[in-house]
Amino acid sequence: MVRQFDRELADLKMNLLRMAEAAEQAGQHSIASVLNRNSELAKEVIIGDLAINDMELEIDEQCLKLLALRQPLAKDLRFITAAMRINADLERIGDQAVNIAERALELNQRPPLKLPIDLKKMADIALEMVCTSIEAFVHQDPQLAVQACQRDVEVDTLDDEYINKLLNFMLKDTPAVGRALHYIIIIRNIERIADLATNVAEDIVFFVEGKVIKHRYKDGMLSTQSV
Amino acid sequence: MVRQFDRELADLKMNLLRMAEAAEQAGQHSIASVLNRNSELAKEVIIGDLAINDMELEIDEQCLKLLALRQPLAKDLRFITAAMRINADLERIGDQAVNIAERALELNQRPPLKLPIDLKKMADIALEMVCTSIEAFVHQDPQLAVQACQRDVEVDTLDDEYINKLLNFMLKDTPAVGRALHYIIIIRNIERIADLATNVAEDIVFFVEGKVIKHRYKDGMLSTQSV
Repeated sequence: MVRQFDRELADLKMNLLRMAEAAEQAGQHSIASVLNRNSELAKEVIIGDLAINDMELEIDEQCLKLLALRQPLAKDLRFITAAMRINADLERIGDQAVNIAERALELNQRPPLKLPIDLKKMADIALEMVCTSIEAFVHQDPQLAVQACQRDVEVDTLDDEYINKLLNFMLKDTPAVGRALHYIIIIRNIERIADLATNVAEDIVFFVEGKVIKHRYKDGMLSTQSV
Repeated sequence: MVRQFDRELADLKMNLLRMAEAAEQAGQHSIASVLNRNSELAKEVIIGDLAINDMELEIDEQCLKLLALRQPLAKDLRFITAAMRINADLERIGDQAVNIAERALELNQRPPLKLPIDLKKMADIALEMVCTSIEAFVHQDPQLAVQACQRDVEVDTLDDEYINKLLNFMLKDTPAVGRALHYIIIIRNIERIADLATNVAEDIVFFVEGKVIKHRYKDGMLSTQSV
């Protein structure tokens, strides 16, 4: 009986990993569709989101069944409830990728802009946060999860910096205002991906350690040591 | 034993209602702080968010305790898992209110702008969606919840319309670009509040009827009749 439950938990973990990979890949492809002006790739991200939505519903059902039939306790209970939340956040990362891909479709129809920002740098950090969170989940490593959370500050700093730079750019080059605004929205979407990765990482710390770090590690209130 | 559990569920419901009211009020005040150029009110929203964060953690703990100690089934299980999700979304509505209040603090230091948009109209719909969702929760009324979801289209339409109008405004009045961009970010925050209200409403339908409508009612795929 116990071994059957362990198999079911392992199966849930596998599905959540597949979901995480799909969401992270959607993020990567959406950014590539902007940087390489690849509208085909953007369309793939948009269509591919339907599969991510289906995965979300499937994982949710799996979690509810486990809660109802197995009535888990302690760490198993925390794992399943964390899985439900991580699942929802991964789906929202997929939605952000769709938003970025939609902006790519608009931008790719118009002449390229030479902008004073490094979109790849910002996206790389946000998507690395997603990867680190997933790794923390696989290895049940709360230190790694806290590391992911802490990188959110870097993304927030770039968010402010790039939006200011784009503002100045818009003031100088008014015909480019429309296109620059698409980039501002993309930057906000990347910032949201970093926020969602932070949520995922917080849920991993909670699942592994039973400690809530949400709302508590910001402004240096929590160091990796204190977890 | 059963009556004690019922009391605990009623207590959870009361806490969730208090949380919903706090989040909705934060939204109202944040918009008022922009429209009435009231920086004191904006500061209240920002400080008040700490209490909303605390409420989130408290409700979460309450849900986990109920899952562990009561091992609920069927509708009770759906209620508690929906409560966990609704709780997280209400907290994020509070975060959006903070974002709007922060923009108000910036905008209120600079001369007012006469903009070609009706921010109040858009915010009213989004915050009405939050209220309708809460009402649907109190009365366990899935039809009301679906009504809330369906208003999301109106907010999305205004989002597109207002961003285009602000773009044109920026092209004509370049010294106002910085301030107009604050308004664009506020519009995106309002749109997020409507999205989060939609998530809450979806979870209410799931809790009451056991039906998943997420990803399924858009583009006219689901009418109020079919729920």
